[in-house]
Amino acid sequence: MAGTDLTQRGLGDGIAAGAPAIILIEPQLGENIGTTARAMLNCGLTEMRLVKPRDGWPNPYAQAAASGADVVLEGATLFATAEEAVADLEHVYATSARPRDMIKPVVHPRRLAAELRRAQGVQAPTGILFGPERTGLRNEHLVLAESLVEVPLNPAFCSLNLAQAVLLVGYEWFQSGLEETALTDTVLPYPGARPAKSEDVRLFFEHLEAELDATGFLRPLEKRPRMVRNLRNLFLRARLSDNEVRTLRGVVRYLAQHEPQRDPEDGP
Amino acid sequence: MAGTDLTQRGLGDGIAAGAPAIILIEPQLGENIGTTARAMLNCGLTEMRLVKPRDGWPNPYAQAAASGADVVLEGATLFATAEEAVADLEHVYATSARPRDMIKPVVHPRRLAAELRRAQGVQAPTGILFGPERTGLRNEHLVLAESLVEVPLNPAFCSLNLAQAVLLVGYEWFQSGLEETALTDTVLPYPGARPAKSEDVRLFFEHLEAELDATGFLRPLEKRPRMVRNLRNLFLRARLSDNEVRTLRGVVRYLAQHEPQRDPEDGP
Repeated sequence: MAGTDLTQRGLGDGIAAGAPAIILIEPQLGENIGTTARAMLNCGLTEMRLVKPRDGWPNPYAQAAASGADVVLEGATLFATAEEAVADLEHVYATSARPRDMIKPVVHPRRLAAELRRAQGVQAPTGILFGPERTGLRNEHLVLAESLVEVPLNPAFCSLNLAQAVLLVGYEWFQSGLEETALTDTVLPYPGARPAKSEDVRLFFEHLEAELDATGFLRPLEKRPRMVRNLRNLFLRARLSDNEVRTLRGVVRYLAQHEPQRDPEDGP
Repeated sequence: MAGTDLTQRGLGDGIAAGAPAIILIEPQLGENIGTTARAMLNCGLTEMRLVKPRDGWPNPYAQAAASGADVVLEGATLFATAEEAVADLEHVYATSARPRDMIKPVVHPRRLAAELRRAQGVQAPTGILFGPERTGLRNEHLVLAESLVEVPLNPAFCSLNLAQAVLLVGYEWFQSGLEETALTDTVLPYPGARPAKSEDVRLFFEHLEAELDATGFLRPLEKRPRMVRNLRNLFLRARLSDNEVRTLRGVVRYLAQHEPQRDPEDGP
């Protein structure tokens, strides 16, 4: 539906073909449709389907609230019934609290994302139903879905607005498209710099230690190896950049020049 | 700070001691403080710290927007500087786009949550800095943090409002407190019912097959084993409840009674 011109608009990254459709059943406030569009685009989701929006469509309040996610609203398609909105989909999910009178599998958003990615891999179109703001989906909608989606949150305070529910489901979708390591690793970027070469780090250490030897800081001699090791570890943990090593050599040089030399007998 | 009376209010579930403090630096709109409080409580986070909120504190707009998360606002503490707000914390994180002139580890919310849980395990207090709505955190705030938190989203459309940023970070925090299987398994609840016993399912199968034999549906005989197997698998996949097995037996009984018996020669 939407999406053909996304790459032209520079929205190609993170927008995968075969992403799930977000299907809003009888949404009430245009503003909520707009903030939902924004949450969708945040997560690389662009296909919005609307079933009987209360205040008609298009809705100027939606546009105003979308904060630039117009591409989602412009591509939104309108349906008269939930059945028609899901007719072409192979896997349909419904976001809902667990009903007390229905036996239906329940998945959390992380599991949902994995299932959606599997479907994407075999070109199976998918969609997720979200209910009206106040009442949520009715049983007539839930029966359209193969599984229910439940967002695990503080059970004593778990109500989310429409855009937030879409955001959490979309967030897991987007994360599931990233490498596992991207989610669990720490990245240390060196903007405008390079990690220092070991050789340069070693020369800095030797410079520092030579100056400290001169001040008597590394006394008594039997403690010197341990003190040196601790100092080196401290700086190694910082994973210095090349610039930082140059800066530190300057620091040592200046401190050693400008500090009055202490009598080694005074110690630190 | 907040939290002492949470269990009395029935908010105990999902509220873990040692959860990170959410620190809002110079938040502008009271409404955003309120929606942030709501997002926090959704995720079991209750300790809010405010540094120089633009419109003073308390703020009636915050209360109005909190939709019942008053316990967070009532427990919020006010600080004059970011330094004071983090003074007692052992691990401080800052949510920010990657600055171009700083070498600082970057983690995603999932990794952040794992680090926060590890700190919680050793009673190390933690906090996460969030910047003013329009401008985000400044360098003077980022230097207070050991790592930056970046939320992976559509790079072409990644701006989040304050409450949504807190919600995504809090969501990962809450998920990290659940069993891994709770996130990745499918749960099939049987409200008001029990999964059917194999014996009862087998009796239903035999009932169905006997009736189908009587109608001639399972002919020719050499195809019968495969047809029976396919039918049984279909029903087994549904993981029937005890009630449903009783219902299905009624369905078969009624169909077999009320349908005119066909001549076996006609076949289905």
